[in-house]
Amino acid sequence: MSLLIAWQLKDKRVLIVGGGEIASQRIDSILVTDASIVVIAPELNSRARQLIACHHSRITHHDRLFLGPSELRNIDMVLTALDDPERSREIVLMCRDARIPVNAADIPDLCDFYFGAQIRDGPLQIMISTNGNGPRLSSRIKERLQRALSGAEGEAITRVGRLRTLLKQKAPGVGGDLGRRRMKWMTRLCNEWELEDFAQLDDAMMKSLLEEGWENDRIPSLKDVGGTCSRRYHQNFHSTIPLAVGLFVGVLTTALITFFRHRK
Amino acid sequence: MSLLIAWQLKDKRVLIVGGGEIASQRIDSILVTDASIVVIAPELNSRARQLIACHHSRITHHDRLFLGPSELRNIDMVLTALDDPERSREIVLMCRDARIPVNAADIPDLCDFYFGAQIRDGPLQIMISTNGNGPRLSSRIKERLQRALSGAEGEAITRVGRLRTLLKQKAPGVGGDLGRRRMKWMTRLCNEWELEDFAQLDDAMMKSLLEEGWENDRIPSLKDVGGTCSRRYHQNFHSTIPLAVGLFVGVLTTALITFFRHRK
Repeated sequence: MSLLIAWQLKDKRVLIVGGGEIASQRIDSILVTDASIVVIAPELNSRARQLIACHHSRITHHDRLFLGPSELRNIDMVLTALDDPERSREIVLMCRDARIPVNAADIPDLCDFYFGAQIRDGPLQIMISTNGNGPRLSSRIKERLQRALSGAEGEAITRVGRLRTLLKQKAPGVGGDLGRRRMKWMTRLCNEWELEDFAQLDDAMMKSLLEEGWENDRIPSLKDVGGTCSRRYHQNFHSTIPLAVGLFVGVLTTALITFFRHRK
Repeated sequence: MSLLIAWQLKDKRVLIVGGGEIASQRIDSILVTDASIVVIAPELNSRARQLIACHHSRITHHDRLFLGPSELRNIDMVLTALDDPERSREIVLMCRDARIPVNAADIPDLCDFYFGAQIRDGPLQIMISTNGNGPRLSSRIKERLQRALSGAEGEAITRVGRLRTLLKQKAPGVGGDLGRRRMKWMTRLCNEWELEDFAQLDDAMMKSLLEEGWENDRIPSLKDVGGTCSRRYHQNFHSTIPLAVGLFVGVLTTALITFFRHRK
């Protein structure tokens, strides 16, 4: 079994070797992170060319074949996306020597790590791994998970992050009793409010939430700070249709039975 | 933003420095993988002691403080779980020198990677990251995702893996036309069947699925190979209660209205 982790790429450089379909997918995956990207490929498909053109401040393209270990200088992660398994293996071995984490597309045995099916919504990232039991199953499970999300989670997380920043400005200091009190209040708030409630918070509402809530050590409702009540919107969405169908069938059958008994 | 990846730990050694609450959680996380574990700690809490006793074939415990860079020999990943941020920082710097990936509990700035909220079910692993916006939100989203899962996904993935193995035995060979035909048939099957259907497959049913399906290049139904139909069991589960409630309320109100109108 793999260890699922969130790898940090702030101020890091990722080398992608190749310029085809899979290389383009890799560029897409890394663009989401904070890394800068180096692409080494003598040929690019149209998607790769487009990505490099659109993000020329973050992507450096070297129009050549991978030359050797010197290409790995100042590189923190390597992704090979080549049609040539022999060449991929050589590059992987160079990475091993330099102790640089490496993924070789289509050659699981050579990979230090795998990619998986992902769901992204702002700061929210979800990864699904079936431990090599098939990408099709991962995407089936991905669809299932996506149906469970309201689509407001990413926005809610962003707003909670903003609220935490404002709280730290209001009650500054690292660690200690104040730090613990801050954490406790944020945890209570996150437990009592629905996720979707947070997505409504603008700066004015956050200000009144901190004034009424933090300063009096209580948890106001969304309505208290000027929001419109959206509690349980998520679960309701899934229950409304079957509830309505049940109601309709119940009324209809009882009415029909009564009607026909009456006619007799 | 982080890059979510599935890190491979087959034949690897993970060093955990510390023996308290967080160290125990780290031991738990790594026990799920294929890695062997080294714990360096002069003191262990009861949970850590218990884990080490139960898994003595996989965990080596050194009853001492972390001595220095020599402790990193043959180590592939380091997790510090110490109350002492200064000591953690020293260990992280030694790991940087040795180019070993390292996570320092409670010191995000020093981490090469983070852990996140996880859902596990056999070979299925799901990780949730809010990119540092609060563990409480991750666990709220985890609960939401868990409600969307039927609990049969892990078993289904295991059986699909078994089926794929049997198919490769029946039609062996790597790559080429046969490999493509195998992949295409498996993809069709995974698209047409519900995930829960796969969880029912025993070896006899797999055998008849391959004989009737693979050999005739078609996708039999679960019933065709001797299973009991469970299609859409997942969605039904969530609809049954509201449907029943609706039905009950519909029947009751109509009956009551009729009854009282009749009495007049």
